[in-house]
Amino acid sequence: MEACGWAARDTSGVLSPFKFRTRANGSSDITLKILYCGICHTDLYFIKNELGITIYPIVPGHEIIGEVIEVGDNVKKFRLGEKAGVGCMVSSCRECENCTQGSENYCSKVIGTYNSLNRADGSMTYGGYSDKLVVDEHFAVRVPDGLALDGAAPLLCAGVTVYSPLVYYGLSKPGTRLGLVGLGGLGHMAVKFAKALGLEVTVISRSPAKRIEAMDRLGADAFLVMNDQEQLQAATATMDGILNTASGAHNLTPLINLLKTNGKLILLGAFAAPAEIPVFPMLIGRKLVGGSVIGGMKETQEVMDFAAKHHITADVEVIHIDYVNTAMDRLAHGDVKYRFVIDVANSLAPHT
Amino acid sequence: MEACGWAARDTSGVLSPFKFRTRANGSSDITLKILYCGICHTDLYFIKNELGITIYPIVPGHEIIGEVIEVGDNVKKFRLGEKAGVGCMVSSCRECENCTQGSENYCSKVIGTYNSLNRADGSMTYGGYSDKLVVDEHFAVRVPDGLALDGAAPLLCAGVTVYSPLVYYGLSKPGTRLGLVGLGGLGHMAVKFAKALGLEVTVISRSPAKRIEAMDRLGADAFLVMNDQEQLQAATATMDGILNTASGAHNLTPLINLLKTNGKLILLGAFAAPAEIPVFPMLIGRKLVGGSVIGGMKETQEVMDFAAKHHITADVEVIHIDYVNTAMDRLAHGDVKYRFVIDVANSLAPHT
Repeated sequence: MEACGWAARDTSGVLSPFKFRTRANGSSDITLKILYCGICHTDLYFIKNELGITIYPIVPGHEIIGEVIEVGDNVKKFRLGEKAGVGCMVSSCRECENCTQGSENYCSKVIGTYNSLNRADGSMTYGGYSDKLVVDEHFAVRVPDGLALDGAAPLLCAGVTVYSPLVYYGLSKPGTRLGLVGLGGLGHMAVKFAKALGLEVTVISRSPAKRIEAMDRLGADAFLVMNDQEQLQAATATMDGILNTASGAHNLTPLINLLKTNGKLILLGAFAAPAEIPVFPMLIGRKLVGGSVIGGMKETQEVMDFAAKHHITADVEVIHIDYVNTAMDRLAHGDVKYRFVIDVANSLAPHT
Repeated sequence: MEACGWAARDTSGVLSPFKFRTRANGSSDITLKILYCGICHTDLYFIKNELGITIYPIVPGHEIIGEVIEVGDNVKKFRLGEKAGVGCMVSSCRECENCTQGSENYCSKVIGTYNSLNRADGSMTYGGYSDKLVVDEHFAVRVPDGLALDGAAPLLCAGVTVYSPLVYYGLSKPGTRLGLVGLGGLGHMAVKFAKALGLEVTVISRSPAKRIEAMDRLGADAFLVMNDQEQLQAATATMDGILNTASGAHNLTPLINLLKTNGKLILLGAFAAPAEIPVFPMLIGRKLVGGSVIGGMKETQEVMDFAAKHHITADVEVIHIDYVNTAMDRLAHGDVKYRFVIDVANSLAPHT
């Protein structure tokens, strides 16, 4: 099928209109007319080839909400006209240990929503900054009624990225004391999910100015300034877990010290450099440092359902597609509260 | 009560006969006539004050097997003449979250078997290189019939130190693929416990010469030379967990790479320097690095019972107390297979 989107052509990362063809809608596929697409920081890395793996032209976007406009013969989960969500992946092997346990996101043959090759026909995958997406229904989730569609788009990546580790690492029980480093796209979602789960949340940030935002608007229980030794000291050994949504190289010792016995520090941001961990405190407190990346499909559906039940959406600034390059600049400078979402359906000029 | 042991008086670490008084046997206490005491590497650190916290004179020893020669009025677990074991701690607060969950070893008020102050009377604690020990019965374990007493002594520290993390970190299910770094006192116990649990064990060592020992004598399933890039490459993503019993600063990347998705690298040796962890591989494989130190009292009893059931004891070289300084020198050079155990009862001259 003919499709149109906005693509970056080189490491300048500048996005501009781009025509392409989607793969054909197979028997287990659905085709989405894309309505909204969130802008994830990863998109920014990819359009500028900061990870060194970009294949140009690239159409980014993996926080996608769309309307089902075509269904294959074997599709069971969706009907025409329903809303569906697609996150960071559109395929995996479906056979390995990870896939059969619902962790398709850790499958070694996972195919990304953009910048990957479709298994079926070897064509490039293009993401949600476009009008159409063909995807196996297994990799699409239902969008429960009542969720605002623009604010729901970031649930597909930012939402599941913070929700999954809370469950996997046993940090989702009410009363759990959770620290949260960084208050951006991921961080603000994490506060909302953690509060809905009944956790006690302390936002940890370098910027004292974020206190009011974190506590009064997002509902965090406490706030801690990262470089304030006195505050750090007072909070020693008080937390069951910490989600670190900040990237950039880190000495993790101050965070480890905030953990109680059996405490868990979960890294969600991909540092380029190795991180340093203090061994002795980890031994005598049986502490751990773990990683996590997005979530599996069953979990992603759980996130959508949980979000609908608890009225959780991302705080978004909805933009038109022709603002996307400005939005990227602003994102690079942390100037967004908290997620740009492109109103694709109402701003992407139809392919002519 | 009057007691005698061997103590170090200064950072030379040289041990020599020493008279002291034990605290009185209280109502919940038992007094042990010490029969055997293992020599742990930690003893070596302490007699030379390598951790900077030694209080001289110090009587080391926390792998203790003894005979009960006195019982307090409220003692329920032991009768006169029975055998009992004491490990690294002789007291804790018994009230905190760690204590009430059976993790007395992580209590912030834990009192070590030596180099600590007794809660009751403020006297120093002296360890198992001596003829007597007074201990609350809660911190002593039963020694099941059929365990060789000399080989059982190291179960109290080395044994529980490797057993506890296998259980806590979910690495004790039959079929689990376990890597094991280092084949010393801890490592050789780990092979035995892991095989008894039904695990597939790969010993990872810098020394190719240990292959025969690891596989033919201890029963490991495979052997991997730590610095052999080809072998490391071939074993990429094959292990569910790794116990690292080696100390010394480390870049943990090669070990992280051996882990499968959800793999766990457990550190048991206390590095002085921070360790380096590669963040990106930990994220995309949801891997974790965790610590652990000895085990709680319930767990220590489990270890004794499990060892008896599966006929597990340490491989020991039994020595007389007057050989202890030579043994310490040999231990410092890794020259022991795999644990020195002092035959205290038959070699410590009675206090005159």
